[in-house]
Amino acid sequence: MTDIKYWIPILGLFGLAFAFYRSFWIEKQDKGSVKMQKIGAAINKGAMAFLKTEYSVLAYFVIVVAALLAWVNTGKEDSSALVAISFILGAVSSALAGYIGMKVATKANYRTTQAAITGLEKALSIAFTGGSVMGLSVVGLGVFGLGALYLIYGNLWGWEELLDAQKIINVITGFSLGASSIALFARVGGGIYTKAADVGADLVGKVEAGIPEDHPLNPATIADNVGDNVGDVAGMGADLFESYVGSIIGSMVLGLAFFKLDAFKENPMAAVVLPLILAAVGIIVSILGTFMVRVKEGGNPQTALNIGEFGSSAIMIVAFYFIINKFLPVSWVYNGITFTAMGVFYATIIGLVAGLLVGLSTEYYTRLCGKPVLSIVAQSKTGSATNIIAGIGVGFESTAVPVILIAGAIMGAYQFAGLYGIAIAALGMLANTGIQLAVDAYGPISDNAGGIAEMSQQPKEVRERTDKLDAVGNTTAAIGKGFAIASAALTALALFAAYMQQAGLHSIDIANPRVMAGLFVGAMLPFLFSSFAMKAVGSAAMAMVEEVRRQFKDIPELKAALLLMKKYNGDESKIEGAELVTFEEADGKADYETCIKISTHAAMRGMILPGVLAIASVVFVGFVFGAEMLGGLLAGITSSGVLLAIFQSNTGGAWDNAKKQIEGGITIDDFKYEKGGAAHKASVVGDTVGDPFKDTSGPSLNILLKLTSVVALVIAPLL
Amino acid sequence: MTDIKYWIPILGLFGLAFAFYRSFWIEKQDKGSVKMQKIGAAINKGAMAFLKTEYSVLAYFVIVVAALLAWVNTGKEDSSALVAISFILGAVSSALAGYIGMKVATKANYRTTQAAITGLEKALSIAFTGGSVMGLSVVGLGVFGLGALYLIYGNLWGWEELLDAQKIINVITGFSLGASSIALFARVGGGIYTKAADVGADLVGKVEAGIPEDHPLNPATIADNVGDNVGDVAGMGADLFESYVGSIIGSMVLGLAFFKLDAFKENPMAAVVLPLILAAVGIIVSILGTFMVRVKEGGNPQTALNIGEFGSSAIMIVAFYFIINKFLPVSWVYNGITFTAMGVFYATIIGLVAGLLVGLSTEYYTRLCGKPVLSIVAQSKTGSATNIIAGIGVGFESTAVPVILIAGAIMGAYQFAGLYGIAIAALGMLANTGIQLAVDAYGPISDNAGGIAEMSQQPKEVRERTDKLDAVGNTTAAIGKGFAIASAALTALALFAAYMQQAGLHSIDIANPRVMAGLFVGAMLPFLFSSFAMKAVGSAAMAMVEEVRRQFKDIPELKAALLLMKKYNGDESKIEGAELVTFEEADGKADYETCIKISTHAAMRGMILPGVLAIASVVFVGFVFGAEMLGGLLAGITSSGVLLAIFQSNTGGAWDNAKKQIEGGITIDDFKYEKGGAAHKASVVGDTVGDPFKDTSGPSLNILLKLTSVVALVIAPLL
Repeated sequence: MTDIKYWIPILGLFGLAFAFYRSFWIEKQDKGSVKMQKIGAAINKGAMAFLKTEYSVLAYFVIVVAALLAWVNTGKEDSSALVAISFILGAVSSALAGYIGMKVATKANYRTTQAAITGLEKALSIAFTGGSVMGLSVVGLGVFGLGALYLIYGNLWGWEELLDAQKIINVITGFSLGASSIALFARVGGGIYTKAADVGADLVGKVEAGIPEDHPLNPATIADNVGDNVGDVAGMGADLFESYVGSIIGSMVLGLAFFKLDAFKENPMAAVVLPLILAAVGIIVSILGTFMVRVKEGGNPQTALNIGEFGSSAIMIVAFYFIINKFLPVSWVYNGITFTAMGVFYATIIGLVAGLLVGLSTEYYTRLCGKPVLSIVAQSKTGSATNIIAGIGVGFESTAVPVILIAGAIMGAYQFAGLYGIAIAALGMLANTGIQLAVDAYGPISDNAGGIAEMSQQPKEVRERTDKLDAVGNTTAAIGKGFAIASAALTALALFAAYMQQAGLHSIDIANPRVMAGLFVGAMLPFLFSSFAMKAVGSAAMAMVEEVRRQFKDIPELKAALLLMKKYNGDESKIEGAELVTFEEADGKADYETCIKISTHAAMRGMILPGVLAIASVVFVGFVFGAEMLGGLLAGITSSGVLLAIFQSNTGGAWDNAKKQIEGGITIDDFKYEKGGAAHKASVVGDTVGDPFKDTSGPSLNILLKLTSVVALVIAPLL
Repeated sequence: MTDIKYWIPILGLFGLAFAFYRSFWIEKQDKGSVKMQKIGAAINKGAMAFLKTEYSVLAYFVIVVAALLAWVNTGKEDSSALVAISFILGAVSSALAGYIGMKVATKANYRTTQAAITGLEKALSIAFTGGSVMGLSVVGLGVFGLGALYLIYGNLWGWEELLDAQKIINVITGFSLGASSIALFARVGGGIYTKAADVGADLVGKVEAGIPEDHPLNPATIADNVGDNVGDVAGMGADLFESYVGSIIGSMVLGLAFFKLDAFKENPMAAVVLPLILAAVGIIVSILGTFMVRVKEGGNPQTALNIGEFGSSAIMIVAFYFIINKFLPVSWVYNGITFTAMGVFYATIIGLVAGLLVGLSTEYYTRLCGKPVLSIVAQSKTGSATNIIAGIGVGFESTAVPVILIAGAIMGAYQFAGLYGIAIAALGMLANTGIQLAVDAYGPISDNAGGIAEMSQQPKEVRERTDKLDAVGNTTAAIGKGFAIASAALTALALFAAYMQQAGLHSIDIANPRVMAGLFVGAMLPFLFSSFAMKAVGSAAMAMVEEVRRQFKDIPELKAALLLMKKYNGDESKIEGAELVTFEEADGKADYETCIKISTHAAMRGMILPGVLAIASVVFVGFVFGAEMLGGLLAGITSSGVLLAIFQSNTGGAWDNAKKQIEGGITIDDFKYEKGGAAHKASVVGDTVGDPFKDTSGPSLNILLKLTSVVALVIAPLL
C-alpha cells in the first residue's frame, strides 16, 4: 500500500515518455514540399518567439511571487518556505507543457497536409498524435510534479501526524498556484494575442486597400497564424492543466478531513492519495484511448475521435470502480454523514457524465444546421443588428442546460460523498484529460493543415480531406470549450470547499450582509475582467495596425509593392513586366517578427490589469473583510463567471458557424443565403464581434474562477 | 400615537387629490392647433387601446391568482383568505396608476408643444406637471392602499398579539404580490410592445421601400409613438410602484421582529408602522419638491429638475431624522445586536445617497461627450463590429461602480441597523419616489412634445425649446434607469430578508450544496429571462411587419399610394395632379388600431414565458428542494440580475448616445464623425442592438428580482 506512492511519479514519467515517443514518430513523417516547409517554419518560428517573450516576462513574476511565498510561510508550523519550490515547479511544468504542445503542433500541421495527399487515415493519425503529445505532456507533468512533491515532502516530514500531513498538503498547494499563474498568462495573454493579431491583420486589409489578411505582404499575417496555436493549443492546454492540478489538490485537501477517523486507521492518507492514484491511472487509460482513434479512407473522423473519447471514458469508469473500492474503506462516518467507497465512485461518474453532457450542449448551440445557428442565419436577412440580437439571444439561452447540469452534479456528488464528492466529481471529469486534450488540440492542428493546403495550392481532393478533418476539429473545439468551462466550474468549487476547510469556515451565510456584499462584488468581477480583456484586444489590434503602417512607410520594397497592389486594386494577375520584378522583390521583406513582438508585448501589457484584478481583489477582501466575505466573493465570481463564460463562448461559436452556414449556402423560407449577399455581410459582423468573446474574454474567465479560488486557498491559513 | 394609523391613508388620499388637481390644471392648458390635437389624439387613443387589452388579459390572471391565494390561505392560523383582497387591491392600484399616468402624459405632450410656442417656462411646467401626476398617483395609491389595509385588518384582528400582527403583515403582503404581477405585465409586456413597434415600424421602411418609420402611410407609426409612453411612462411607473410597495412591506415584515422587546412595550408595532409613516410623509415632501421646479426663459431646465430632486432629498433627510427619533426607542437589543433610532436614520441616508450615486454613475457611462461614449464613437470608424465590441466593453465596465455602491450600502445599512436597516435603506432610496418618478416621466412627455413639434412643423425657436427640454429628458431617463435598478436591488434584498424571517431561516449556507446549486440556477435565470424577452421582441416585430404587408395588399387606397411612393422613390414633392388626389385619399386609411392590437397581443403572448419562468422556478425550488435552496436561488437571481440589468441598460444607453454624438458631428484624432458617414452607419447598428437591451430585457430584470422575492415571501409560510 505504501509503495503506491512511488508508482505515481513513475506513471507520470511514463506518460511523458509516451508523449516523447509519439513526438519522435511525428518528426519522422514526410515534411512535404519546400513551400509547405517554409510556411510551417514561419509559423513555428513565430510561436516560439511568442513563448520566448512570454516566459521571459514570466520569469520575473515567478521569482517575485516565489520569494513572497517563501517569506510569508517561513517559520509557520503548518507550512514551510518550501511552498516556493512547489510554486516554481507548478509554473515550470505548465510552461513546459505549453512549450511541448506548441512545438509538436507546429510540426504536425504541415506534416498532416503532406499526409492528406495520400489519404485520410495517415492525416488523421498525425493530427491526432500531435494533439495527444500535448494531452499526455499535460497529464504526465501534472502527475509527475504532484506525485514527486508528495513523495519528497512526505519523506521529509512523515505521513503519520495530522499536522505533518497538513503541512505536506499546504505546501503542495503552491504547485496549483504556479499552474494557475502560467494559465493566466497563457490563456488571457494568449487570448489577447490571437485576437489582436487576427483583428489587426484584418483591419490592415480594410485600412490599406488591396492587402488581404492572409497575403505574404501583410506583415501581420504570420502573427495571425501563430495566434491560432497560441490560443487553441497553448491556451487550452494551460487551462486544462490548471483544472487538472486544481481538482487533484482540491480533493487532496478535502480528503485530509478523514485523517483521524477510525476507518482510516490503517492508512490515514488513503483519501488524500486517492486523487493522485486516479489521475495516474487516467494516464494509462488515455494512452489506451489514443490507440482507439483509427479511421479508414472514406470513414468518418468524428466517429474515430468519439470512439477514442467515449471508449476511454468507459474504461476510466471501470478503473474508478476497482481503484476506489481497493483504496477506500467500505464506509465511514464523518460529521454525522455516512460515506461509502461506492458513493465516491458514483461521484466520479457524475462528474464524468456531466462534463460530457455540458460539452454536447455547447455543441448543440453552436453546430452547423442546428436550430440555434439557423435562427441566427434567418435573422441576418434584416441586417447586422438583428444578427447580433439573435446571437445574444441564443447565447443567453444556451446558459440554461449547462448550469442545470452543473447544479445537478453538485447536488448529486454531495449526496453521494459530501464536499469530498464534489471535488472527486471534478477529478472524475478531468481524469481522462489526456485524451480530452488530445482531441481538443487536434482541432487547431487540422485547421492549420487545411490552411497550409490552401496556401501551398494542393489539388482538390487533398483539400477535401483536410476540410473533412477541419470540420470535425470545429465540433471538437466547441465540445472542448464547454468541457473546459464545466471543469473550471467544478474545480473552482473543489478549491472553494478546500478553501473553507483550510480557513476553518464551517458555514458561509448569505444572510450575513458581508457575504451578500461579497457575492455582489464577486459576481461583478467577471464583467470587469471581460471588459479589460476586450479593451486589451482593441488597443493591441490598433498597435498592430500602426506597426504595419510603419513598415509600409519605412521598407522601400514593401512600399513599392503596396503601390502596385493599389494600382491594380488588389488583382495580382495584372502585374507584369518590370513591375513584376518590383513585386517579387518585396516577397519576404515584411518584418513578421516585429509584428509578432509588438503583438506579444501588447498582450503581456494587456493582461496585467486582469491579473492584478483577480489576485488583488481576493487578497484585499480576505485580509480586510475576513474569510467569510471572501467566501461570498468566490461564490459570486464562480456563479457569474461560469454564466458569462458559457454565454460568451457559445455566442461567439454560434455567430462563427452562422457565417460559415451562409458561406456554404442555405435556403430558409424561400430566401437564399449565400456568400457575398447582404445577409453574409451581416453575419461577418457577428463573427467579428464573437471573436474576442469566444477566444479571449470567454475562456479567460475559466482562469479567473480557478485562480481566485487557488489564491484564496493559499492565503487561507493566514486569514 | 395610535392615531397616526388613521393619518396614513389620509396622506395617501392627499397625494391623489394633489395629482388630480394638477391633472385638471393640465386639462385647462391651450391644446394648440387642430393638427397638433389630431396627432395627440391618435397617440392617446393608441395608448388607451393598449391598456384596454392589457387589462382584459390581466383580469383573468388576477382572478385566478386571487382564487388560488384565497384557497391556499383559508383556515391558516397566521394567514387568511383575505390575502386575496390585498392582492386584488395591489393589482388594481398599480393598474390605476398606469392608467392615470398614461392618460395625463398623452394630454401633456401636445400641450407642452403648444406652450413652447410662447416660452420655455410654461413648457417645462406642463411637461413636469404631467410627470408629477404620475409620480404622485403612484405614491398616493401605494400609501393609501397599504395604509388602508393595515388599518382595516388591524381593526379586524387587533394589534396586541404577535400572532395577530403576523397575520396582518402576512395578509398585506398580497398587496405587494399584486403590484408585482402588474409590473410584470407593464414592464415586460410594455417593453416588448415598445421595441416590437419600434423595430417593426423601422423594418417596414426597409422592406417596403419608400415608407419611412414615421410616415402617416405606415400603419405601425402610431404604435411606435404609443410605445414610448407604454415603456417609459407606464412601464417605469409600475416598476417603481413595485419597488416602493416592496420596500415598505419588506421593512414592515422585518420590523415585526422587535414586537416582543421591552423597548417596544409601549408600541410593539412602532418598527412595523414606521415605513408607512416615512412613505406617507414622503408624499408631502415630494409635493414640496414639485414647487421647487421652476425655470425662466434662457434658464437651464436641468438645474430646475436638479433643484427639485436634490432639494426634496434634503428635506426628506430632515423629515427622516424627526420621524425616526419620535417613533422609535432610543436604543434596543435584538439577537445580541444593539439597535438605535439614530442607526436606523443613518440607514435611510445610506439608501438615499446610494440611489442618487448609482443614478449618477449610469449618467457618466451614457452621457454625451463623456469618455465612455466617445470611446464607442472612436471605434465606430472601423465598422459596426468594433462599435459593438466597444459598447459591450463599456457596458461590462459600467457594472463596477454601481455594484460596489450597492455592496457598500448593504454593509453600511446593516452595520447601523441590521437586516431592518437594509430594508429601511431601500425605503430611504424610495421615500421620495413621488418626485423621482415625476422627473422620470417628464422625459417621455418632453420627448413626445419634441416629436409633435416636428410633425406639426413648428418654427425653429419652438423646436429649439422642445429640444432643450428633450435633451434634459434623456439625462433624467439615464439617471432614472440606474435608480430603478438600484432600488430594485435593495428592495429585492429587503424582501429577501423578509422571506428568511417568514420562512424561519436563520442562515443560508453557501457551503450547503443545495444552496450552491440554487445560486448557480438562480444566476442563470436572468440570462434565460433576457433571452425570452429578446426573442419576443423579434417575433412581435415580425408579426407587425406581416400586418403592415397585409394592409398594403388589402386596402386599395394604401396600395395605390404605396405604388406612387415607390414610383418617386419616396420623394412626395414629385407627386402631382391626379396622382396627388390618389395620394391624399390614402391619408388616414391606414388601420393603426389593428397594428396596435397585433403588437399588444404579441407582447402579451411574449411575456407569458418569462412570467411563468419567474413564478414557476421559485415555487418549484421552494416546494421540491426547500426553503434554504430557494434562498440560494434568490441570491443568485439578485446578484446576476442586477449585473445584467446594469450591463444591458448602460450598454444600450451608451450606444444610443454614441449615435447621437455622431449625428451632432464630432472630431476625434483628426477624424470627422458625422451623419451619413460609415461611422454613423456603424453606430446605427449599435443603437438598434441596444434598443431591446435598454428598453426590454434590461428593465424587465428589475421585475424579475422583485417578483421572485415577493413570490418567495408569499409562499414562505407554506414551506
